[in-house]
Amino acid sequence: MAISLHQPAFSAHSTFLSTNTTATNLPPNHHLRLPLSFRCNLSLTSNSNPEPEPVYSSVKSFAPATVANLGPGFDFLGCAVDGVGDYVTLKIDPQVRPGDVTISDITGAGNSSKKLSKNPNWNCAGIAALSVMKMLNIRSVGLSLSLEKGLPLGSGLGSSAASAAAAAVAVNELFGGKLQASELVLAGLESEAKVSGYHADNIAPAIMGGFVLIRSYEPLDLIRLNFPTEKNLFFVLVNPEFEAPTKKMRAALPGEILMSDHVWNSSQAGALVAAVLQGDLVGLGKALSSDRVVEPRRAPLIPGMDGVKKVALEAGAFGCTISGAGPTVVAVTDNEEKGREIGEMMVEAFMVGGGLKAVAMVKKLDTVGARLVSSISR
Amino acid sequence: MAISLHQPAFSAHSTFLSTNTTATNLPPNHHLRLPLSFRCNLSLTSNSNPEPEPVYSSVKSFAPATVANLGPGFDFLGCAVDGVGDYVTLKIDPQVRPGDVTISDITGAGNSSKKLSKNPNWNCAGIAALSVMKMLNIRSVGLSLSLEKGLPLGSGLGSSAASAAAAAVAVNELFGGKLQASELVLAGLESEAKVSGYHADNIAPAIMGGFVLIRSYEPLDLIRLNFPTEKNLFFVLVNPEFEAPTKKMRAALPGEILMSDHVWNSSQAGALVAAVLQGDLVGLGKALSSDRVVEPRRAPLIPGMDGVKKVALEAGAFGCTISGAGPTVVAVTDNEEKGREIGEMMVEAFMVGGGLKAVAMVKKLDTVGARLVSSISR
Repeated sequence: MAISLHQPAFSAHSTFLSTNTTATNLPPNHHLRLPLSFRCNLSLTSNSNPEPEPVYSSVKSFAPATVANLGPGFDFLGCAVDGVGDYVTLKIDPQVRPGDVTISDITGAGNSSKKLSKNPNWNCAGIAALSVMKMLNIRSVGLSLSLEKGLPLGSGLGSSAASAAAAAVAVNELFGGKLQASELVLAGLESEAKVSGYHADNIAPAIMGGFVLIRSYEPLDLIRLNFPTEKNLFFVLVNPEFEAPTKKMRAALPGEILMSDHVWNSSQAGALVAAVLQGDLVGLGKALSSDRVVEPRRAPLIPGMDGVKKVALEAGAFGCTISGAGPTVVAVTDNEEKGREIGEMMVEAFMVGGGLKAVAMVKKLDTVGARLVSSISR
Repeated sequence: MAISLHQPAFSAHSTFLSTNTTATNLPPNHHLRLPLSFRCNLSLTSNSNPEPEPVYSSVKSFAPATVANLGPGFDFLGCAVDGVGDYVTLKIDPQVRPGDVTISDITGAGNSSKKLSKNPNWNCAGIAALSVMKMLNIRSVGLSLSLEKGLPLGSGLGSSAASAAAAAVAVNELFGGKLQASELVLAGLESEAKVSGYHADNIAPAIMGGFVLIRSYEPLDLIRLNFPTEKNLFFVLVNPEFEAPTKKMRAALPGEILMSDHVWNSSQAGALVAAVLQGDLVGLGKALSSDRVVEPRRAPLIPGMDGVKKVALEAGAFGCTISGAGPTVVAVTDNEEKGREIGEMMVEAFMVGGGLKAVAMVKKLDTVGARLVSSISR
């Protein structure tokens, strides 16, 4: 598989490169260099490309957590949240067969990281790394990868996408950042397809940052929705100790829906996109809360969800819904301190209404996406 | 019935007032004064408002044609098109019972205007005029109204909405422009409900201009989507000699749709809104063409439609779909001359594929909406 882009060439992350650079040193408007729309066409092969030389002996990358669906944006909209996500350290390793990758270590996320396979063909980070190596036509260098999970598995915060995004960016940057963001999304999508289903609403924002609308898959067509930087948007993310397997959450959805519900949800999807682009926080919250198709079927599967949403809105959140396939619940507000108060009330409501322990965090929008955080020159 | 607005007060058209002022003298960015979102609450009564004095003895107003649905924006999105629409002349008439309106004359639109009732309770313009008079609490003045149809009936170009919008604005301006745009939309909606169904996707853009998203009806919540003024957007509108009654077109729609079609259309609705706000003409066209829910059911009811769409796209249109409930077909392009070529080919395709005569016009976006075009002081 290989790719041609119908967009002016740009390197998604090439300006990030410098030894020991941290993400916080990035220019704040870096993301504005991204074109608004990305399209990929899989008709060409990349094997004709010359194999690039590695630029670093080792890189460390980070990819953020993501909130997919956002109510009426079911299966086509997601956004990245700042300051929580996964890290990948990637090294040139002469012990590893050239063109291959091994997973040396998986840490973090409590015991749940032990569930993850170290076979790169069955690990999100491994699959994405191999996919990018194939795109770049890497045949002479072997890599070893270490994954540090900052996100719990199956939380509805794009855990698998964060691993895949961090790995994809790490490989790309190690070899000089030749690939564009949309190509890395395709690599991540290959990983998502094997691990949690063929959907890009986590992997696209995990790689690109901000809000991303997935317009189509064939060809992959992504629309970056720039939220006005001057607006204060805070996500309250409340994660209960409860397993909500994506499979079960997907099975809860009907094969058909009422035309009237379709019209309603479509209009709310349009309103959601307008709210993001116009920086209308109240409108964003309203759209988030408006889903009549997916949330009504999934909420009953998360103990206490209805009460959690209710207290979030009562406490002043602009809107509230399930993050991804759950069980994390997401609310939005314009004030960090208020976000903490809302979060505390939601945690309490999870215990009262669902008998579930939960933890809350308040996060800003991540507008950068997956990035290099440090590197060691050769 | 009466209204309270949850938005900063503004008079939608009060700056338009001057004797013999034409719409072309309006400031080009006039519409930017509109707030992004309008909400109406019907819980208060207006009867407590003092009855306003008439400011003019006579006014003439214009309201533009509108394109509703726009593919995946079915039933919640519409836009106004420049230079074609209906005119209303409204006069203070001592012969008319105070608080009432009579329709003195209906002209234009060939023979089809003869189909229109002169009973104000059964005429779109009459209903809207009476509704605005009620909102303003007019009890001491009688009015006579003359309607000049610039739009054919049942064409899918918002003919009834244009009449209602022109009448609503005329009454409001005659009495000093006290009501806001969203209130006039409510008056027009009362008219639409009686004549063609309770939907605001024609009446809202006919009154407000530009693109308008109808977020909800209870309360009425409208989102103005500002298309970047520097972009060239042309609508190619091809109207065949064929009757496509709204009722029949509505009956063609299913009660339920596939979840997969819902997700697809919702994502295209989001993409459509993004394209409008970002001024992305290619993306707008693509969204217009993408409907998998409504157009596939309605297109077979318009003879030749498939071929018309095909040649429009082959001729370089960015996108093409049914305007409103049809039979007019709308295509978009960025060049007026090209628009005319596309229109000619579409007209030919209607004859070849559907045996229908058709006429084409190329129009820009109307960003002003219904307005006063002239007035005579008392």
